[in-house]
Amino acid sequence: MSVDERRRVKRLPREVRERQILDAAVQVFSERGYHNASMDEISDVAGVSKPMIYAYLGSKEDLFAACVQRESANLLEAVAGGVDVDLAPDMQLWDGLRAFFDYVGEQRAGWRVLHRQAISQGGPYSDELVAMRRRAIGLVDTLLVRTATKQGLDEHATSATEALAAAVVGAAESLADWWLDHPEVPSRIVAARLMNLAWMGFGDLVEGNTWSPRG
Amino acid sequence: MSVDERRRVKRLPREVRERQILDAAVQVFSERGYHNASMDEISDVAGVSKPMIYAYLGSKEDLFAACVQRESANLLEAVAGGVDVDLAPDMQLWDGLRAFFDYVGEQRAGWRVLHRQAISQGGPYSDELVAMRRRAIGLVDTLLVRTATKQGLDEHATSATEALAAAVVGAAESLADWWLDHPEVPSRIVAARLMNLAWMGFGDLVEGNTWSPRG
Repeated sequence: MSVDERRRVKRLPREVRERQILDAAVQVFSERGYHNASMDEISDVAGVSKPMIYAYLGSKEDLFAACVQRESANLLEAVAGGVDVDLAPDMQLWDGLRAFFDYVGEQRAGWRVLHRQAISQGGPYSDELVAMRRRAIGLVDTLLVRTATKQGLDEHATSATEALAAAVVGAAESLADWWLDHPEVPSRIVAARLMNLAWMGFGDLVEGNTWSPRG
Repeated sequence: MSVDERRRVKRLPREVRERQILDAAVQVFSERGYHNASMDEISDVAGVSKPMIYAYLGSKEDLFAACVQRESANLLEAVAGGVDVDLAPDMQLWDGLRAFFDYVGEQRAGWRVLHRQAISQGGPYSDELVAMRRRAIGLVDTLLVRTATKQGLDEHATSATEALAAAVVGAAESLADWWLDHPEVPSRIVAARLMNLAWMGFGDLVEGNTWSPRG
């Protein structure tokens, strides 16, 4: 490396260097899985030396934890940022689902690390996923409670909203996982499928529109 | 132990002894989690000596794998056994959901091991869960395809069934997880919530009954 190159590399602020490392790590973990990912490959892809990676972000384990945390924070931020809380609840749910699937579609490697790799690694990584899911259920529940209350539903009906919110969030996660294997389907179509499922199902509460077993 | 007691214990066939051990292991893993579960406690609860547990079912790791496998097989069997394939698709889905939530309700410890502990352990245990989820999606998809075809829907519409099946299965899993923390809700009510979500959402395909964004 020439003195000029060295100066250029050195001039990068730490957060830029860390982002390069995390971007590379997400890509490598996503493609290889945790166990088969090597620090050598992450160093190659990032264009950052291994000693610098260790100095900035620690061991492979620490690096994976940092990836899961960053992807989880970015995803929640993307969804929250996509929603205007002054709109009607159904539009908020729609915008939130669109933001979720847009994010997953643009950041497939990140979602793969966050969802598939974190689950298959277990431990603190899956705890992060569980915590994210709980926050998402809370957000959806708030929307459903607001809708149900506006429609003048009683306490019995509104107590059902958390169960529905859990179902909708589980459906979103499972659908996003399915989508990893069907990238040809547009984001908007995937979001619309879930919106129909969620909102039509919610019609049970707000309009008394229900399915009943026969006989 | 007296000679009489020894004879009585010895007389138990191996499969009965193995079931005792697995029942105890599921209970202890469910309450303590994998890491904090001890072979001593499993031995106490089962009333079977540690050397015999090792001889019959191997290490703690092997024992946990056997629990996850047994619970996964039992759950699929309970759901498949609860469905009459000669009924209409919506009744089959309803019976399948009822069987699923009845099983989870009766076997809370088993579901906790299968779902929460297996996810937080990762590796081959979460693989088992992923495989079970795929089989469940396949079953629901078959039902939805049959319905869509009966309604004379074209190929474009039926290609959506797998996505919907993934959403319904994810919703069921998430709802069952929520239910672990809300055991006071009756099984039938939980199943009915999801049935409404699933079948009303499926109305999108079969009746063109959809939610659309305004503006």
